[in-house]
Amino acid sequence: MIGVTLPETRAQALELDRADPLAGCREDFVIPEGVVYLDGNSLGPPPHSTLDRIRRLMADEWGGELIRSWTSRGWIDMSTQIAATIASLIGVRPSEVAVADSVSVNLFKLLAAGVRMRPDRHVILTEEENFPTDQYIAQGLADLMPERISLRVVPRRELAAALDEDVAILMLTHVDFRSGAMHDFFRWSEAAHRVGGLVIWDLSHSAGAVPVNLAEADADMAVGCGYKYLNGGPGAPAFAYVARAHHDQFRSPLWGWMGHADPFEFGPEYRPAPGVASLSVGTPPILSLAALQCGVETVAEIGIRRLRAKAMELSEMFIAGVERECRGHGLELASPRNPERRGNQVSFHHSEGYAIMQALIARGVIGDFRAPDLLRFGFAPAYLRYADVWDAVDALAGIMDSNEWDQPRFRVRAKVT
Amino acid sequence: MIGVTLPETRAQALELDRADPLAGCREDFVIPEGVVYLDGNSLGPPPHSTLDRIRRLMADEWGGELIRSWTSRGWIDMSTQIAATIASLIGVRPSEVAVADSVSVNLFKLLAAGVRMRPDRHVILTEEENFPTDQYIAQGLADLMPERISLRVVPRRELAAALDEDVAILMLTHVDFRSGAMHDFFRWSEAAHRVGGLVIWDLSHSAGAVPVNLAEADADMAVGCGYKYLNGGPGAPAFAYVARAHHDQFRSPLWGWMGHADPFEFGPEYRPAPGVASLSVGTPPILSLAALQCGVETVAEIGIRRLRAKAMELSEMFIAGVERECRGHGLELASPRNPERRGNQVSFHHSEGYAIMQALIARGVIGDFRAPDLLRFGFAPAYLRYADVWDAVDALAGIMDSNEWDQPRFRVRAKVT
Repeated sequence: MIGVTLPETRAQALELDRADPLAGCREDFVIPEGVVYLDGNSLGPPPHSTLDRIRRLMADEWGGELIRSWTSRGWIDMSTQIAATIASLIGVRPSEVAVADSVSVNLFKLLAAGVRMRPDRHVILTEEENFPTDQYIAQGLADLMPERISLRVVPRRELAAALDEDVAILMLTHVDFRSGAMHDFFRWSEAAHRVGGLVIWDLSHSAGAVPVNLAEADADMAVGCGYKYLNGGPGAPAFAYVARAHHDQFRSPLWGWMGHADPFEFGPEYRPAPGVASLSVGTPPILSLAALQCGVETVAEIGIRRLRAKAMELSEMFIAGVERECRGHGLELASPRNPERRGNQVSFHHSEGYAIMQALIARGVIGDFRAPDLLRFGFAPAYLRYADVWDAVDALAGIMDSNEWDQPRFRVRAKVT
Repeated sequence: MIGVTLPETRAQALELDRADPLAGCREDFVIPEGVVYLDGNSLGPPPHSTLDRIRRLMADEWGGELIRSWTSRGWIDMSTQIAATIASLIGVRPSEVAVADSVSVNLFKLLAAGVRMRPDRHVILTEEENFPTDQYIAQGLADLMPERISLRVVPRRELAAALDEDVAILMLTHVDFRSGAMHDFFRWSEAAHRVGGLVIWDLSHSAGAVPVNLAEADADMAVGCGYKYLNGGPGAPAFAYVARAHHDQFRSPLWGWMGHADPFEFGPEYRPAPGVASLSVGTPPILSLAALQCGVETVAEIGIRRLRAKAMELSEMFIAGVERECRGHGLELASPRNPERRGNQVSFHHSEGYAIMQALIARGVIGDFRAPDLLRFGFAPAYLRYADVWDAVDALAGIMDSNEWDQPRFRVRAKVT
């Protein structure tokens, strides 16, 4: 895979698309004309199946069966079915995954549970590079229980040294949201367990993007996002994993009726449902779950290994193309050069990154910008073509060659970037 | 309103529908033919506007604009807009309401925050009659912080006596999910404040059903449900209210990036957004929010006072009809007889309640059953006709007169009732 270069001509890129066994998968997605979508790592596009499914859900199930749909249309089992498909993507058993709430709320559940599983320890360890919301959630838990727990945040290079016997939980995001750098599950599971701690992974930029084998890596717990590479729709429900070995000790702090062993008993005392079922809290959001189900199934049907192989090829071509076509314009690779060590995204530093990204978006090449200076491009190969990579490089080179980015309209910062 | 009786004939009921100024509102909803839907208190039906809105959202926004929709289609502001409409239904300012997560998760935030606002107190007080998930959430918080807080649960009749100076929070559900009995906001605000405590209301069976004036009643905090009388769809996002006076002290324990003062700064330290904006945690669920927005707007446009007046009339007719037509069959009113003292639902005890409800559902009259012996009927007057009430009573009388309920197929308990 390493050393793949961008074709010299667009015609050659089109030739690669014609030969691509995954080319037909693009037809499964709604992608607007004239857009090269390199932001599926922020929000995957809708599968066509989702549009059909939601239309039927609204009219025939919600509108047709009303409240009866909870049983007659299987709404009550939807989150469990999705969890089973996600389990297959992350290398664990269906009974170890739950789908509920958001990544942040699920992380709160796992952190609070993990702290209680290590009653004589007082530290959650993470790295500065971790996604901010993960750090915020841990800060919030520490703020709630300051005598019980504190958060230790160190630069990545100091992680190993900071992992000592005070650490209850090592909390890491598998794929760095800025650089795409990918942690080694095995290394950190082993390191955390060696000092007696637990490891909790955030798979938000991994699930549906790269093959993940949590069981083999002996991971303790994990959370992940439904709306990125799983194409579940904006703000889709999230998932959480708890290894079977911890099910007896695991105790979520959010005791909701849907996590009760018998919710419709309406009894006075909370009795947690067994295993990950206790991660459910409120009534499951059926519209969002139905969309997530279509998104997850679309990815699972294509197959994660084939997707990953093509994503590595696309991202290698993109890097090679940018370095060849934009030479001298100050774009500096911010991602690991070895594709085995990064997820499906590639980032470049540039001091004018914000304006350059706006200029790209104006040309229909949608990536995103992350402060302070990162242009970020995601390669979700289910719907991306080799020609898209060629077009993206061509657009970027055109923008850099002509200083097209240097216009007031591209410098105004929107509220959401 | 008291003393309204059921018309003797169906023709007379139809006459009332012809004269009803709200009759046309039914056209705004998807209601299947042949169904009398008396379970809008569990799951409101979809407004037609929701089907249109979701179709456009999926194809034109998510599928058409992709990630850009967060700004170009205003997704980022959707929850704030919905909150403003809900604020108008519960008598508070738009800046005092947030829409996020589930009722249960929101209650966890408010309870944890409220406990910290009364640092020298250690009790959350509630009544046995409160909805189980509310009790479970409080139990979960107490289990997480046993030195800090405990839950005191007493029968309703002992609430006043149990409200002492140890109480940090009085937690009550406004409308009882079993009987429909409605608490007096003013009485309990006054009582809680007299001993120096806070009051948190659950408005799940109130919002969109009965006029609520939390500000006038000096309520401190509240949560409420989006999928019952607000017709937001199965598992719709929930809302939370925090009185302006508490915004400076209020601190949610769930520190997510969407509740950060500047989420896209991606800074290392959590700084809460001002006021209720800090109640947002993860990325907002746009499909579910769009459906909720349509549901909430449909109710707000009709007007809560007109809805309540008709609901009281319908429920009075239903009680009078059941007591007249089903006399001698053992159905005993479980709701307050005074319509001013109950929400928009009516319950009857019957030892064979489960089978009777299944027989009713088989006839297309959808209410629900709550253990141990309650038949529960909700009157959401935006789409219910006087003739529906007549038909429901007629079906129930037919079932009771003929013992139609006494069949094995009606006695088998489904997983979800």
